[in-house]
Amino acid sequence: AQPSVCAERPCSIASEKGIKLSTNLLPACNGEITTMSFLQDIVDILLQYVVKSFDRTTKVIDFHYPNELLQEYNWELADQPQTLEEILLNCRTTLKYAIKTGHPRYFNQLSTGLDMVGLAADWLTSAANTNMFTYEIAPVFVLLEYVTLRKMREMVGWPGGCGDGIFSPGGAISNMYAMLIARFKMFPEVKEKGMAAIPRLVAFTSEHSHFSVKKGAAALGIGTDSVILIRCDERGKMIPSDLERRILEAKQKGFVPFLVSATAGTTVYGAFDPLIAIADICKKYKIWMHVDGAWGGGLLMSRKHKWKLNGVERANSVTWNPHKMMGVPLQCSALLVREEGLMQSCNQMHASYLFQQDKHYDLSYDTGDKALQCGRHVDVFKLWLMWRAKGTTGFEAQIDKCLELAEYLYNKIKNREGYEMVFDGKPQHTNVCFWYIPPSLRSMEDNEERMSRLMKVAPVIKARMMEYGTTMVSYQPLGDKVNFFRMVISNPAATHQDIDFLIDEIERLGQDL
Amino acid sequence: AQPSVCAERPCSIASEKGIKLSTNLLPACNGEITTMSFLQDIVDILLQYVVKSFDRTTKVIDFHYPNELLQEYNWELADQPQTLEEILLNCRTTLKYAIKTGHPRYFNQLSTGLDMVGLAADWLTSAANTNMFTYEIAPVFVLLEYVTLRKMREMVGWPGGCGDGIFSPGGAISNMYAMLIARFKMFPEVKEKGMAAIPRLVAFTSEHSHFSVKKGAAALGIGTDSVILIRCDERGKMIPSDLERRILEAKQKGFVPFLVSATAGTTVYGAFDPLIAIADICKKYKIWMHVDGAWGGGLLMSRKHKWKLNGVERANSVTWNPHKMMGVPLQCSALLVREEGLMQSCNQMHASYLFQQDKHYDLSYDTGDKALQCGRHVDVFKLWLMWRAKGTTGFEAQIDKCLELAEYLYNKIKNREGYEMVFDGKPQHTNVCFWYIPPSLRSMEDNEERMSRLMKVAPVIKARMMEYGTTMVSYQPLGDKVNFFRMVISNPAATHQDIDFLIDEIERLGQDL
Repeated sequence: AQPSVCAERPCSIASEKGIKLSTNLLPACNGEITTMSFLQDIVDILLQYVVKSFDRTTKVIDFHYPNELLQEYNWELADQPQTLEEILLNCRTTLKYAIKTGHPRYFNQLSTGLDMVGLAADWLTSAANTNMFTYEIAPVFVLLEYVTLRKMREMVGWPGGCGDGIFSPGGAISNMYAMLIARFKMFPEVKEKGMAAIPRLVAFTSEHSHFSVKKGAAALGIGTDSVILIRCDERGKMIPSDLERRILEAKQKGFVPFLVSATAGTTVYGAFDPLIAIADICKKYKIWMHVDGAWGGGLLMSRKHKWKLNGVERANSVTWNPHKMMGVPLQCSALLVREEGLMQSCNQMHASYLFQQDKHYDLSYDTGDKALQCGRHVDVFKLWLMWRAKGTTGFEAQIDKCLELAEYLYNKIKNREGYEMVFDGKPQHTNVCFWYIPPSLRSMEDNEERMSRLMKVAPVIKARMMEYGTTMVSYQPLGDKVNFFRMVISNPAATHQDIDFLIDEIERLGQDL
Repeated sequence: AQPSVCAERPCSIASEKGIKLSTNLLPACNGEITTMSFLQDIVDILLQYVVKSFDRTTKVIDFHYPNELLQEYNWELADQPQTLEEILLNCRTTLKYAIKTGHPRYFNQLSTGLDMVGLAADWLTSAANTNMFTYEIAPVFVLLEYVTLRKMREMVGWPGGCGDGIFSPGGAISNMYAMLIARFKMFPEVKEKGMAAIPRLVAFTSEHSHFSVKKGAAALGIGTDSVILIRCDERGKMIPSDLERRILEAKQKGFVPFLVSATAGTTVYGAFDPLIAIADICKKYKIWMHVDGAWGGGLLMSRKHKWKLNGVERANSVTWNPHKMMGVPLQCSALLVREEGLMQSCNQMHASYLFQQDKHYDLSYDTGDKALQCGRHVDVFKLWLMWRAKGTTGFEAQIDKCLELAEYLYNKIKNREGYEMVFDGKPQHTNVCFWYIPPSLRSMEDNEERMSRLMKVAPVIKARMMEYGTTMVSYQPLGDKVNFFRMVISNPAATHQDIDFLIDEIERLGQDL
């Protein structure tokens, strides 16, 4: 005879002499109380962190150099367990050194902010702990993915929201999917026979596009040399005539153009490629049109700004990352595809242990085989719940406000002493790119020495920002332009006063340079 | 003059007439109390769900067909916001129909169970809401990834834990990385020039290996025809002599063998390929040896069972999914690579807006450019915190117990009336594969009619399991073997009595078939 269920498990009560270990938690016998109390302790730590994240008197970051951080605490993994008390301490320490990405003055990435409903949804997703491959094990999440993707396709402008799509682990993978599907559409035999069996392909994207287009081409065996970079105008938008010229040139060389990846919201300038002109060219030459709207896609939620994506409805596929402009917790990236069924044909392998054909429910809901992944994290619930909580109009208000703040920043610095804009004119997205010119450089001639000194300004200011922990904003060089600040606003917590603060802080930290 | 920070934001207090919306949450002015109370309400719902997940009197699943579920509740996305009350209701409804993947009688996938420390860690990860690309924005997590991957490489047996690696979104992607890196190692020019510039490659894996090897080959432009499936013995292990024969055959045809993907723990049989013999062959023919230990890698934590992976230390790369046998919440998959720097060379694109070379800290911690992804979810913290809480010995105990339960099941049914084992002998992993033979088939001759009736048995029992909601276990056909049950045990909550229950339940639900 086997022992009873309870006797088989370590008992939580038995060890209540004080020290608690993870073996006292569920599924331990009588582990309910220890579990509830442990999880509540964690939640209390997290709630405190969340509230502090929004507090402007708190630092964005308590910066330590890697070697300091390694020495400050013992992070090593050992044979023996730690107590639950120690586990709570580990959590506190981890959060102490974490970047407060929800802080109103954290502007460092395209993904900023911390949405409370999104956070709640992510916590639920963790507790549900399942995988997206089948309806069998993720019934609600599979349906919500269906509902949400259809809604997103409607907003792209595809009639009735028809088409296909998937939530993927980030924009780079979404863009890679687009390339993969475009190739398969033109040469389905590539799936079995590989690139050896098909002509030399070429893809086109702008010189300001995201590096994931090249990364995808390298991975897919196309090669980065076959990604032709199209020139941009001074605002960072692809020049359609250059695209057409390069397509013709490639065809003359015997290459086969199979993909144009236009960008709606470039990473640095926030530029929107002219999608209508690009769509015309793609149509003329029968090339798959992809729109990388990882960053700019969110503007589809705004009646005021969505015109910037006019023409997106003519795309064959669209990347759109709700974890960027819409503030959904990381990660949440969608690839939308106009033709239904193509993803499935391209990627399916019919694994019989997952996608049994003799199940008792409608198998069209077993969507896992269209993915490159096997197991796939549930990324949809955060977006779905936030959408329910805000409504489309709530997202719109949030996005409009960020764009308004960017315009405020632009107006404030465009004629201000000590600032030079990287490109002229009002920003199309929330990217505001500028140089801060310290007093010592202001009267210098525009020569090499000035350039080489200016190049060092942004990195030093940035390092100081991190050391003081007051704010964070990104910088980079681009082409022949030396390091400049790229300010982006996607954080719904940011206000005009935070923009004012940023300007003051840059001047405070940079005036002696 | 700009309005004050607070006046710029909707005020939570102002709307305290009753109805609360997400706009009353932080960052709303005075939103702290509403936020704490909303998140606490969510947590209360989740804690209730978690406790119920471990309760054997609760159903594993409250099954509804897709069309029923779509009708039972309004899941649509609208223009207008819902109240926070409604948001809580959405969460309750979502959980009502969710599969309780932590339930002691949920055996459906390789990933089962719900670890309390893992859950806590995932909640913290959500609150920290950052991305893995740079030390700048994920200092602690980047260090923990470094510490954890090194420890995993030590357990693989690479001296000093040296080497490289990454946490990727699932085993399929980890396997794809291995293929990508192996190809790059042999022909680095493929990155720029694509497959057109290099000879026709072939990869080898067993006929029982995971479908992701073919999926990867299709994606990378190698083609599924270039994945040669090596025969397995009756236990599902790759036959080394067949591997060598097929390598020679491929070479004779002028193809270039570049990868052998051995499996440590196959998906259906739980078989371990003979890694030492395979390593010898890989060495002889200078082929990259990858070990897909997504499922079996966890056994490296067990002094009793790790011999099953003997030879893994000779691999060039290893996939190991802590979200499977180690019970880490989804997703947590590691790719480990013996040669340091290769991933970086293979995948890097030097995006200057992320990987600035003039930062003020040690840039070797900016590991994002070795990934195919740009943004990358923080998957390491769950594993790291669980490891701290259990110690290596705690993981070992958990894994040993699952294997002991599998042996218990095997011993119980191997000679029991109404059962036939799919393969002979004690299972090497926790996979126990068997047919349940209903009374009506027991005396039938072994002919086609019996086969076609037996084929329908497992699907019907499975459908009934789901409708009753009492347990879930997977089934599939394999090769010429008709549908059989594949029982797997990775859930630390399972006990001998749950195994007994499963047997009783199969008999109860199948006796009339």
